[in-house]
Amino acid sequence: MLKVIKIGGNVVDNREVLESFLDDLVKLEGPCVLVHGGGKVATEISKALGIETKMIDGRRVTDERTLDVVTMVYAGLVNKKIAASLQGRGMNAFGLCGADGGAITSGRRSAGAIDYGFVGDPILELTGVSTLSMLIERGYMPVIAPITHDGKGTLLNTNADTVARTVAVALSSVYEVELIYCFEMAGVMAHIDDPASLISHIDPAHYAELRADGTVSGGMIPKIDNAFDAVRNGVKSVVICGCDAICKENCGGTRITL
Amino acid sequence: MLKVIKIGGNVVDNREVLESFLDDLVKLEGPCVLVHGGGKVATEISKALGIETKMIDGRRVTDERTLDVVTMVYAGLVNKKIAASLQGRGMNAFGLCGADGGAITSGRRSAGAIDYGFVGDPILELTGVSTLSMLIERGYMPVIAPITHDGKGTLLNTNADTVARTVAVALSSVYEVELIYCFEMAGVMAHIDDPASLISHIDPAHYAELRADGTVSGGMIPKIDNAFDAVRNGVKSVVICGCDAICKENCGGTRITL
Repeated sequence: MLKVIKIGGNVVDNREVLESFLDDLVKLEGPCVLVHGGGKVATEISKALGIETKMIDGRRVTDERTLDVVTMVYAGLVNKKIAASLQGRGMNAFGLCGADGGAITSGRRSAGAIDYGFVGDPILELTGVSTLSMLIERGYMPVIAPITHDGKGTLLNTNADTVARTVAVALSSVYEVELIYCFEMAGVMAHIDDPASLISHIDPAHYAELRADGTVSGGMIPKIDNAFDAVRNGVKSVVICGCDAICKENCGGTRITL
Repeated sequence: MLKVIKIGGNVVDNREVLESFLDDLVKLEGPCVLVHGGGKVATEISKALGIETKMIDGRRVTDERTLDVVTMVYAGLVNKKIAASLQGRGMNAFGLCGADGGAITSGRRSAGAIDYGFVGDPILELTGVSTLSMLIERGYMPVIAPITHDGKGTLLNTNADTVARTVAVALSSVYEVELIYCFEMAGVMAHIDDPASLISHIDPAHYAELRADGTVSGGMIPKIDNAFDAVRNGVKSVVICGCDAICKENCGGTRITL
């Protein structure tokens, strides 16, 4: 089973949490692809450069200067620090973004009511399965930054959850894939303040209820939508769990199934 | 013949020159590795972040914050823009830094009279020939940023001329290699202001004369030293030429031979 594991800003921004996560990651058996988000550094650098950060529904509006910053921070700083840290642990990590080897090609999101700027949505059919599987077959761990390209020379800022889902689905044509969304909580919670309220399993009917009663809202919606999209398109197993749980026999978390 | 081509800040900093160079690059026949330098953007970003840029003999003193900046700019911004631009031209470029796939491992330069900080000198024996040749064999063009790692988890800022030389020498165990240093002038000039004074060929005896009479000085010395090191260690051909000359039947420039 190939694991595609996504970590977000809560891991990337906290050196101690990140180091502990990477310690766990190298203990996993079997091949693995790591997808990472960006974190707060991009906002800090933007601020220092006098670029206003504009978020709409938790997504960064990406003008040309902001694209430069997220490219620097995600595909440069964060990606290469993780690659070097894994190399230091004896894991042959290979950091890349979507432009490298044509790994992930996106369509630029057309400006509707909101113009997100240089933001792209991955095109599944154009995913570079041969590039990723070459690395995996040769024993490298791909470490993917959420910067993609349009195939015509332009880089695009891309949601890391969506990158992870796209990679997981695309690689399902070659491998049995488990997609793991690591997360600041132990999984999807019925009551956000009650650790005992972990929802162990969500299927579509349950999801409809959870959305209707407001248990699932905000940024959790696109994450769970991505998870369902993955299971509907060939990914064998999808889990949303804590970033400290990937090594456990049973990582707990919330399993997403049809 | 595999070409290892190095471009510096004069190409990277000028969008028009870079685009024109990349137009030429994709016309070359046969496999190619591109190594790029950094350019002025790192200095600008450092300034905006309130980090003082300290250069000694043309080399950047790299404290921890400066390392973050050069990693961002070289391995993120510059590297990924070039990769995406080449992809847009139909060339399957694969951007990487020395940490990726263990491509280039360096030893941190020990603090002598001058402490350069997080600066590394590549270790030839630890170069990831298998990583680079895998990419080349599979039809990718490696695009290498001059950030390396020490194999223990730390990134290191590394001179791009030296990276190019190390890659050229290491790949000479597998390929016939030509190393091309692209440059802001047409080659090594006897009189810097006279385009007709191009020195077409330098051997060690001639080099000794040129150094003794001051024709070659400053930043040209490490570049030519790198060139001689390459020819002495198995690289078939080494040329220093203008960045507009790589496509010409005879790129002119200055050939370095024993």
